[in-house]
Amino acid sequence: MTVCGRFPFCNSYKWFGETVLELGMNKPGGGGLRNYNVPNLPVVISRQSRVALPQQVGDELKRLILEGYFRPGSVLPSSRALCDALKVGRSTIIEAFEQLKSEGYLVASAGSATRVSENIPSAMPEAPLPDTHELRLNSLSDYANRVHKEALLYERTVEPEIPFYCWRIARDATPLREFKQLMSRFSLSAEQEMLLDYQEDPLGHRPLRDAISKYLEKSKGIKADPQQILIVTGLPQALNLISRIHLERGDLAVVEEPCYPPVRKGFESEGASTVSLRVDAEGLTVDNLLRAPSLRVRLVYLTPTHQFPTGSRLSLARRLNLLTWAGTSGAFIVEDEHDSEFTYGANPMPALKALDKLDSVIYIGNFAKVMFPSLSVAYMVLPRDLTGVYAKVRQYGSDAVPLPIQCALADFIQRGLLRKHIRRMQGIYEARRDVLLASLSWYFGDKVQIRGEHAGLHLYVRFETTLSDAEIVDRALQAGVGITPIAPYYAGLAPQSEFVLGFADLETAEIREGIRRLAEIIL
Amino acid sequence: MTVCGRFPFCNSYKWFGETVLELGMNKPGGGGLRNYNVPNLPVVISRQSRVALPQQVGDELKRLILEGYFRPGSVLPSSRALCDALKVGRSTIIEAFEQLKSEGYLVASAGSATRVSENIPSAMPEAPLPDTHELRLNSLSDYANRVHKEALLYERTVEPEIPFYCWRIARDATPLREFKQLMSRFSLSAEQEMLLDYQEDPLGHRPLRDAISKYLEKSKGIKADPQQILIVTGLPQALNLISRIHLERGDLAVVEEPCYPPVRKGFESEGASTVSLRVDAEGLTVDNLLRAPSLRVRLVYLTPTHQFPTGSRLSLARRLNLLTWAGTSGAFIVEDEHDSEFTYGANPMPALKALDKLDSVIYIGNFAKVMFPSLSVAYMVLPRDLTGVYAKVRQYGSDAVPLPIQCALADFIQRGLLRKHIRRMQGIYEARRDVLLASLSWYFGDKVQIRGEHAGLHLYVRFETTLSDAEIVDRALQAGVGITPIAPYYAGLAPQSEFVLGFADLETAEIREGIRRLAEIIL
Repeated sequence: MTVCGRFPFCNSYKWFGETVLELGMNKPGGGGLRNYNVPNLPVVISRQSRVALPQQVGDELKRLILEGYFRPGSVLPSSRALCDALKVGRSTIIEAFEQLKSEGYLVASAGSATRVSENIPSAMPEAPLPDTHELRLNSLSDYANRVHKEALLYERTVEPEIPFYCWRIARDATPLREFKQLMSRFSLSAEQEMLLDYQEDPLGHRPLRDAISKYLEKSKGIKADPQQILIVTGLPQALNLISRIHLERGDLAVVEEPCYPPVRKGFESEGASTVSLRVDAEGLTVDNLLRAPSLRVRLVYLTPTHQFPTGSRLSLARRLNLLTWAGTSGAFIVEDEHDSEFTYGANPMPALKALDKLDSVIYIGNFAKVMFPSLSVAYMVLPRDLTGVYAKVRQYGSDAVPLPIQCALADFIQRGLLRKHIRRMQGIYEARRDVLLASLSWYFGDKVQIRGEHAGLHLYVRFETTLSDAEIVDRALQAGVGITPIAPYYAGLAPQSEFVLGFADLETAEIREGIRRLAEIIL
Repeated sequence: MTVCGRFPFCNSYKWFGETVLELGMNKPGGGGLRNYNVPNLPVVISRQSRVALPQQVGDELKRLILEGYFRPGSVLPSSRALCDALKVGRSTIIEAFEQLKSEGYLVASAGSATRVSENIPSAMPEAPLPDTHELRLNSLSDYANRVHKEALLYERTVEPEIPFYCWRIARDATPLREFKQLMSRFSLSAEQEMLLDYQEDPLGHRPLRDAISKYLEKSKGIKADPQQILIVTGLPQALNLISRIHLERGDLAVVEEPCYPPVRKGFESEGASTVSLRVDAEGLTVDNLLRAPSLRVRLVYLTPTHQFPTGSRLSLARRLNLLTWAGTSGAFIVEDEHDSEFTYGANPMPALKALDKLDSVIYIGNFAKVMFPSLSVAYMVLPRDLTGVYAKVRQYGSDAVPLPIQCALADFIQRGLLRKHIRRMQGIYEARRDVLLASLSWYFGDKVQIRGEHAGLHLYVRFETTLSDAEIVDRALQAGVGITPIAPYYAGLAPQSEFVLGFADLETAEIREGIRRLAEIIL
């Protein structure tokens, strides 16, 4: 149906192949019975439309009522008059009238007359008053305004030829085929009922939690009862639950400096204040925290295995000091292991959660890097005494991961496919990392400092250069190379010349060529 | 590996089929080199374990360091002495030492001596001090404490023979088979790259938004540009986004009385205050809102098509008044259409969003009832001027729906399977509703008032009885019938004798028998 009552130039025309009967334009002044210019009602009916005629007539009459053409309480033209005007059968008009009566637009009145309901407001505004429009945009929360000023995190721009992007995984080697098969095959025997009902276990699908529990013990030495494991949709949901459960307005949360900005935003969105503690070659400078016991810190968020973005690894001494401090202060430690499945060379450091005798650590694991990011599944290992409150806050205030995905992922882990995939990717990623290290050393010599080569899918580099970060990014892009400066990850004053170089999604030849081009620009 | 250093009664025993060598228990007093009772180190090594020997030795040495047995800075027994004591080869000890050095527990010192790092805290607490434990549980947020006092929303209890539960769908007629096929088949051509990267479009998978846009226009007369549609993980995520974007501490949000409790909790979790407005046979009593313009209401949440839980339908007059009020006050209306795909008899009332010329309505649609609840996909139709801020707040602060699910659902809708499924379920549900209405009338006569029979998957009933709600629920359960009282859905004083009767998951014979048993109990 094409409504064109507001365009005075359309009289009878073709519109997307439909012939449209145009029935006149004049808006009448009054609202009484005989004031309507029935033969010239501003109504458009199309016989070519797939919408049934009574529906079209009903919709048009509604429009006239809502626009104030037919006023509340006024008597409508008779069905016979409308038949003539609209060139439709009487049954069409009667059907439209019945529909509008059932919806409350029309009421039958004395005799056969049909009136517009008295309860319709006499004129609906057509567009918000300009004041109101401003008013309602200004009424957004402070948090919304702050976030609105930021750039989107991942924006599709022109893809450079050689993107050293740290959020990439090796897209040519994902386990997608196997995973898709499992999605169509996930067993329904015991799960069927549950699958079709609401997910009654707020911690998540039990077989998936069992599989993660075994995986954590074998791969990371973390002993987690499945009842301590909570399946979440990703890092944001985990941070949101943590914030809601632990932080009141004005509470302090410690984060790393530099740090992934949504983490800071996550804590701040609940009204907490964040304190950013510097990261050095040994990770978060925990000593600063221990030296200021008067700060009432509720929790400390960190990425100890491969700090994001600087790549440093928290030393054992700091790990133990942090755990002791948490045990005595009653604070919680949030350990985010975003890409620690992949480690190279040196023995991996034990996870904080593996050392956590006092149950102070809230561990966040993630399948984004190890499977693929858009899988949207992560998990938390909770202190035992907090599982109850987490389960309830999850159920009352946030959503579960779709059960078909949880079933397929449980299957994937149980069949040993996850360990197999990690082993395979370990080899691929290590080769790419080696080439990146060798290329940096070959082309940059002592003009580059490197950190974070022991784990993960990116390196931290600091170039010796007089160029600004913006100049480097621009010239690199012109040369077809995408790199990301670290400065935006700092809350405070940011040093220049620091970058993250992701190597996961690049062939070794691309890596070599990319670093060669960067050296040409920077040196 | 079995650690039993703390149990003085175990000397040499079988433990899960392993032979365990027990090497003595005495804790030494001092920390110097020759003070350790090396032949009696409290260490357990199992040759039957699947854990490699160097790893076992390393883990045990770590434990002794962390427990303070080997003190920071002290010299370790020689590798030769440890070989003898632990009955393992020298290479095993050396490998364990190397591992512990790389992790920072040990340092090589002058000559061949190996020392415990000075940086290890001298004794890690074994269990939180009792004070601390209390302290950290008391430190949870007010919100967490409030939610923790509530019961779980869906708890697996003994299933009654005839459950009239309103959260059920017809579990014998879900489109699971078709959906599973589509999950294994979703096309990867254009989407492959995106699927494997982070989901760069924060509004959600474009083909799914296109499909929902077409579906909304055809089924509900809602004209929504795909760029106004945001895919969310469910009602909680939608409410969370709304709260974060529109509500500051102390702001007012209007909800229905009675209302689904997580909705109230959702708004309150961001610090807003909720005002509960009574619902009558015509839905939310909007007039009360219009009469109190001094209240600075930021938003009004309602379920106009089939109010949850009372089933009433918001009248047209109230719809139009509410829209006009929102347009002039700058407030937003949150329209939650949880089960409005299924309507019976009368013409459905137009959605508020379909009447929304001022773009004041935030519409929430959900696939929980129409597909299956554990699918965990819902969507929002946003006012045009707010899509930007919603996209960013989504991306910074919450998670996307797993892309495989979005792809499969887009496919499901595009192939016409959703419309086909709805048509089929419409027939099934209408038959069940008819039997429930007839049974209530047959067995209860004028001792029951019914509401909400025009739509959805449950009826509201009010019995004429002198029994309390608790007595009715208990006796019904004893008779194998599960029903849910409405009282817990009220924020204020709750009337008695009101119940919701879900009919979706019951055969017609079960419905008849269930109502017969209820009549026996209640009349």
